[in-house]
Amino acid sequence: MQIALVVYDRFTALDAVGPYEILSRMPDAETVFVARERGPVRTETGALALTADKALAEVPRPDVVVVSGGPGQHALMEDEVLLDWLRAADATSTWTTSVCSGSLLLAAAGLLEGRRATSHWLALDQLRPFGVEPTGERVVVDGKYVTAAGVSSGIDMALTLLGRIAGDDLAQAVQLGTEYDPQPPYDAGSPQKAPGHLVDMLRERSRFILT
Amino acid sequence: MQIALVVYDRFTALDAVGPYEILSRMPDAETVFVARERGPVRTETGALALTADKALAEVPRPDVVVVSGGPGQHALMEDEVLLDWLRAADATSTWTTSVCSGSLLLAAAGLLEGRRATSHWLALDQLRPFGVEPTGERVVVDGKYVTAAGVSSGIDMALTLLGRIAGDDLAQAVQLGTEYDPQPPYDAGSPQKAPGHLVDMLRERSRFILT
Repeated sequence: MQIALVVYDRFTALDAVGPYEILSRMPDAETVFVARERGPVRTETGALALTADKALAEVPRPDVVVVSGGPGQHALMEDEVLLDWLRAADATSTWTTSVCSGSLLLAAAGLLEGRRATSHWLALDQLRPFGVEPTGERVVVDGKYVTAAGVSSGIDMALTLLGRIAGDDLAQAVQLGTEYDPQPPYDAGSPQKAPGHLVDMLRERSRFILT
Repeated sequence: MQIALVVYDRFTALDAVGPYEILSRMPDAETVFVARERGPVRTETGALALTADKALAEVPRPDVVVVSGGPGQHALMEDEVLLDWLRAADATSTWTTSVCSGSLLLAAAGLLEGRRATSHWLALDQLRPFGVEPTGERVVVDGKYVTAAGVSSGIDMALTLLGRIAGDDLAQAVQLGTEYDPQPPYDAGSPQKAPGHLVDMLRERSRFILT
């Protein structure tokens, strides 16, 4: 089973590495990082580069597609090379998935029309113009399309997906192996839970955070 | 504030990328991935390379040290280049930290002697020969030493650390920005919670997983 993790300039590292860490532990999984060109791809901070081992064109028919989000997503919303690849990969994929603002790229490719999907809480409203029904859920499964909310939610998405693909036993073994027993020191991980002034601050800054 | 994320051949990606994703969002943080040599460093699956932008020798006095774990840790337990660098960096660091079996490298460098620390649940027992008191807690703060349990726990560790460094408000803003509101589809993330047959299976396999 080939799993293609799509990254691009100014993506968010954890969006891709969360699902990678879970899905790559599936026996017989071939996990491959792909980008427009082979080579190092920098995250939005500039402080980290991951290597895309394959160009998009070299991975035409992955079984699972995982599209990362991040500030660089904005520049790709009309990138026909990427959008065409997404459409073609989706035509034969078993699962087409995204993390964070990666769902906006799936939406821009027309793949989520008429479906329910999620995204980073600051980006949810941007799904609607593409005919997508946004939901604030952390992981949304609609047919073969699985979308995750912001950044860290890709871990929950990947465990959900792994359970569907390989069964609950393996998914739980991977959860145990990665010791995913979250104990955040704060309870501020969603706009419903975080202090209001922080929600307001991030909303104000979102033009900068997301662009 | 300079934050050095130490990686090496066959490290575990999420060990490093979890803390990176949290700590790099601190204003004025300079986050840098370091390894023995500059260049791409492969994780234990072989399916992902991260770039070490600096060699250890180029980052002699980081404020924060974060040592990743992973199967490659075993081969470094007597690597005097790394252990000497850890000792020297620790001499001036504000915080010396680890994720997963990274704590075994701190222990091998003699930095945790007489302290409480944690590690991946499968590696906890290996702390004791270095005079370290293992604890099954997810994040352990003992003086300036902060150790995290397996793989995904680096996110909780980094949020804890960020709160200490920059205050609760910023840490909560980063939790909100990364939408870290975990909702795992299973409750199998620790040996106390997972089905017994999976705990046994991973214990049996640990010679292969950890080597």
